[in-house]
Amino acid sequence: MREVAIIGAGMIKFGKFPQYAAAKMGGDAGLMALEQAGLKPTQIQATFLGNIGNPPNLAQRVNGEIGMTGIPAFNHENACASSSAAFRQAFLSVANEVHDYALAVGVENMTSHIEMGTTTSGPLVLPHGANIEADNGMLMPGVFALLGSRHMAEFGTTPEQFARVAEKNHRHSAQNPYAHYQKVFTLEEILESRMVCDPLTLLQCCPIGDGAAAVVVTSAENAKKHTTKPVFVAASVLTSGQYKESAEGPARIETCVRAANEAYETADIGPEDLDVVELHDCFSIHELVAYEDLGLCPKGEGGRFIDEGLSGYGGEVVVNPSGGLLCKGHPIGATGVAQLVEVVWHLQGVCGERQVPDAKAGLTHNGGGFGPGNAPGAMSITIVKS
Amino acid sequence: MREVAIIGAGMIKFGKFPQYAAAKMGGDAGLMALEQAGLKPTQIQATFLGNIGNPPNLAQRVNGEIGMTGIPAFNHENACASSSAAFRQAFLSVANEVHDYALAVGVENMTSHIEMGTTTSGPLVLPHGANIEADNGMLMPGVFALLGSRHMAEFGTTPEQFARVAEKNHRHSAQNPYAHYQKVFTLEEILESRMVCDPLTLLQCCPIGDGAAAVVVTSAENAKKHTTKPVFVAASVLTSGQYKESAEGPARIETCVRAANEAYETADIGPEDLDVVELHDCFSIHELVAYEDLGLCPKGEGGRFIDEGLSGYGGEVVVNPSGGLLCKGHPIGATGVAQLVEVVWHLQGVCGERQVPDAKAGLTHNGGGFGPGNAPGAMSITIVKS
Repeated sequence: MREVAIIGAGMIKFGKFPQYAAAKMGGDAGLMALEQAGLKPTQIQATFLGNIGNPPNLAQRVNGEIGMTGIPAFNHENACASSSAAFRQAFLSVANEVHDYALAVGVENMTSHIEMGTTTSGPLVLPHGANIEADNGMLMPGVFALLGSRHMAEFGTTPEQFARVAEKNHRHSAQNPYAHYQKVFTLEEILESRMVCDPLTLLQCCPIGDGAAAVVVTSAENAKKHTTKPVFVAASVLTSGQYKESAEGPARIETCVRAANEAYETADIGPEDLDVVELHDCFSIHELVAYEDLGLCPKGEGGRFIDEGLSGYGGEVVVNPSGGLLCKGHPIGATGVAQLVEVVWHLQGVCGERQVPDAKAGLTHNGGGFGPGNAPGAMSITIVKS
Repeated sequence: MREVAIIGAGMIKFGKFPQYAAAKMGGDAGLMALEQAGLKPTQIQATFLGNIGNPPNLAQRVNGEIGMTGIPAFNHENACASSSAAFRQAFLSVANEVHDYALAVGVENMTSHIEMGTTTSGPLVLPHGANIEADNGMLMPGVFALLGSRHMAEFGTTPEQFARVAEKNHRHSAQNPYAHYQKVFTLEEILESRMVCDPLTLLQCCPIGDGAAAVVVTSAENAKKHTTKPVFVAASVLTSGQYKESAEGPARIETCVRAANEAYETADIGPEDLDVVELHDCFSIHELVAYEDLGLCPKGEGGRFIDEGLSGYGGEVVVNPSGGLLCKGHPIGATGVAQLVEVVWHLQGVCGERQVPDAKAGLTHNGGGFGPGNAPGAMSITIVKS
């Protein structure tokens, strides 16, 4: 396999845009990525798109918005990891010389399709008839509240420590013009917001919204022709697992531990080398547990890690400078590529007020599925370097 | 790229099974494919699944039914070509040595999700709010009726010739225990069935139903260890295009002409070499036009081709021995891999009463999308040989 580089990254502002068609959202992000790469639409040889609930053949529709047609176009669904799977295939298509230039896109308009009531995002976030656990309240907040409760019992972690994750990410988001929310909250405000599922309060849960992001990938060799700031893909891992596999041993997500180990070995980059991480903080609890699963701190020390400010600016690694899913937002299919765009922009040094100083290595972490009824999940880890 | 072979193929009987969970349907087809390949579930290294409307992460759920976990699992949506896209990625993963053994699955339970009213199959087959043409009746029967009307105007093709395609496929399906319908109809019965969209009568339109199919792919080198009847993948093409690109020139589907030419060149197998073809006869008209687009006969001579019986047993090539989408059924995500399973079984010589004698080369043709509102489409052509 040849080395792969990202030469363009684009993203629209996240928010609630029920009238902004998914194809147009993806097209706008794609055009921004192409512009950064200095490529014409006709130079892209294949499109790989992640989405779970907008119209069929969305990759082809996005291509139409950009002004591309006649090329292979793949649509991926892997729950919250949908566009991470799409990126993995874009990466492989270039690494294996199937294509020289590929576009990976993540897009989701959740507000329009929840209004229409016709698509798959509904079943993912709302109870439906096929699952007795979900019908009885075991939705995603419940899944992560249980994980957090277990972490508290095992390691003495406190509700304040989980809330502190949300405080940090809200603070970060205030500097990010692409974020759905850009508002600072105090620890007290977060703890006193409406209880959703103990110990998770409202401001510790990601919102429902809309967004899109895109990256252009090519070979490392080609990259030199297009940019002075290529970002190289050091590892791309996608795996899967079942909920119950995390039921033994300490509170953790087993697929994350496994995927991270494989990614670090492939990249020859360890957690101590990372400058910036975008991780899947669907709920504050998930971020704290992921510190440990990703090896940013030892198992059981996630609470200390956030207390000491080690995951913020001036700490050991800046986690979720974008504001994360909690504040930048989590339009399901958009998230994986949006995380990559954020990390790429930091490595390119173009992030303005939220720039992580001198960022040279970054990681994205994105899980999809994993929940009630032993629902199986996908887990994606990507490591990039400048 | 190394040569790729199919060493196992499985399929469930198609029909209406609203209580048969999609994951179980895919699992049953997968287990049959594994059994034919003589593989244990733990030997599969990745799963690629096509589906448009059942629960998220369906590939992982199918893996769970089979007894597999912890491996990459990709879910593909490309409208009717969903599992053709999944197969393409399974093929590439083996060709490029990413994996040694991969499972491609196609599955769709349409009857259950239409009952639930929560998923994307609805918008594909029913009018929805986003498309003025669809709202005014320009659904898939209308798209193909227009194509047929144009073919009649250009080439003098008759409604009887279109109906004869359905007569042939119903006759074929009567020998296929996997078909949704297994009933012979006379040409008169077909022409006199309820008019859906002139010149298409009801018995010239594919049904809504449920089904699943799976194939195991590995390298040609590995294949020898597992079977004495490997089927080799001579070409795998997936492309896309827009509806309006077929608006100029004679009545045809432009993406099909383009994909077929690429596939024949890659495979070094021409239309005259084919013994068996499974093609996308969503409506009788599409099969007749595809004869020409695939080069089975010259442009404009599709009517003569069916009149002379050249696409049936004893003709030049047996088209849709399964009964095709018209009679075997068209559970959207299942179709692409199901077509492959049928052709593979003919090349293995295991088709019983419907066996195409001495079949050595086969082709599958599957399109997805392409319709109202200039909806873009996918087109897949796969050529296999013994």
